[in-house]
Amino acid sequence: MPRYKLTIEYDGGGFVGWQRQENGLSVQQAIEDAIEKFCGRETTLFGAGRTDTGVHALGQVAHFDLAEAAEADTIRDALNFHLRPAAISILAAEPVDDDFHARFSATQRAYLFRIINRRSPLTLDKGRAWQVGTPLDSDAMAEAAQALVGFHDFTSFRSVHCQAESAEKTMNHISVTREGEEIRLLLQAPSFLHNQVRIIAGTLGWVGEGKWTPKDVSQALAACDRTASGPTAPPEGLYLLDVVYGKKAGGEKKKGGKKKK
Amino acid sequence: MPRYKLTIEYDGGGFVGWQRQENGLSVQQAIEDAIEKFCGRETTLFGAGRTDTGVHALGQVAHFDLAEAAEADTIRDALNFHLRPAAISILAAEPVDDDFHARFSATQRAYLFRIINRRSPLTLDKGRAWQVGTPLDSDAMAEAAQALVGFHDFTSFRSVHCQAESAEKTMNHISVTREGEEIRLLLQAPSFLHNQVRIIAGTLGWVGEGKWTPKDVSQALAACDRTASGPTAPPEGLYLLDVVYGKKAGGEKKKGGKKKK
Repeated sequence: MPRYKLTIEYDGGGFVGWQRQENGLSVQQAIEDAIEKFCGRETTLFGAGRTDTGVHALGQVAHFDLAEAAEADTIRDALNFHLRPAAISILAAEPVDDDFHARFSATQRAYLFRIINRRSPLTLDKGRAWQVGTPLDSDAMAEAAQALVGFHDFTSFRSVHCQAESAEKTMNHISVTREGEEIRLLLQAPSFLHNQVRIIAGTLGWVGEGKWTPKDVSQALAACDRTASGPTAPPEGLYLLDVVYGKKAGGEKKKGGKKKK
Repeated sequence: MPRYKLTIEYDGGGFVGWQRQENGLSVQQAIEDAIEKFCGRETTLFGAGRTDTGVHALGQVAHFDLAEAAEADTIRDALNFHLRPAAISILAAEPVDDDFHARFSATQRAYLFRIINRRSPLTLDKGRAWQVGTPLDSDAMAEAAQALVGFHDFTSFRSVHCQAESAEKTMNHISVTREGEEIRLLLQAPSFLHNQVRIIAGTLGWVGEGKWTPKDVSQALAACDRTASGPTAPPEGLYLLDVVYGKKAGGEKKKGGKKKK
């Protein structure tokens, strides 16, 4: 059966997250419903990573199979038509090989976390960034973040509900940059643990406020205990930026296990 | 009476524009109501420029008088408190001299117009940019825009309902830059005519599509006829960026007339 890869953007605000579930509309379900309207068959969509309620995506990737081949651009346009008015947009559809798997073929994921550092409430960025009223020292945050780069046991930086078999992961890159009132965290890794980016953002927030030093972050990592690190930052600041395939981007061995974002 | 200057951000999507009117909630009215809740008196707020329904602001400026002086930061925080949950944020409040006037003391305004040039629907930028599906040549748009810089009769580039006495205006600066799928128009002038930026954006859109050459834009300007230029681009792409006071930024003589954006 012909397989297609989708690149997907969404405003996570109106969904219960990526994964199909009972308590509300998920992004996965909305797209599966659109595929069914297009091809007339119930179809399963496989995503590169699960995003939580309120988390956005600029470049989520997913794949599905069709019984009969169709033009990729036709698929893109038809799905966008059937998705209306949901805040989900199919940026691209392309045919891929049978052995392509959105989740297991991925070699690197990138996440962006946006902080708006100001006292006044958000308007245009409401639901699209984490507002922090206390002045944050982004240089200290950038310095502290470097302790998390490399291969580590990230037990302190994953949700206690995380279902991944192992907390040992490689973080390829973290940068913290400020432009005016906006601070952007960019993180790249072969895969992420549940709430990992949000706990890193919350913990770096403490460093930015001066409550913690960069050394405290190293100690929190070494503690291998969720209660040793900072709070989980809100989902609305988080964006799944892109997913890389092909070139092996990290040092992590693929297991096909229960890795979860 | 002590006078205060406000710097204001808003998502224009939920308002009938800046100016108080009968058919719905305006930004001016929402802030005037908040001022009344703060000081207990009906108060008039004077804005630097009127924005239409759906037009956003990142740095609108306005002024008002209080019967008794108050701490500027207290005013900012109190107004933000009373404005909730409206998508209006007071970024700053500051005391100013009695002769400061948000509209008549302004020497330059800057507007941003955002175009997202892609076929797929918008999600996070819905209501925050003009989506154009046809590929646009931003270099041609940038070239064409230069014909509009300087002192001109902008009759072709103002609404037929514009109430300004004269269409002769100076445009200090227009730049057109692209980053990925986003094209940004930045315009600076001592003052703007009604719909001027949106008609410029719509006309440059024709150039971007290849329907018009840069020379056609010069000819449209010379025609001094609204029907000679392009369409009015939608309001959701437009942002009042900032208002400059003090240094005289342009060559235009201040008249205090009925200039309108």
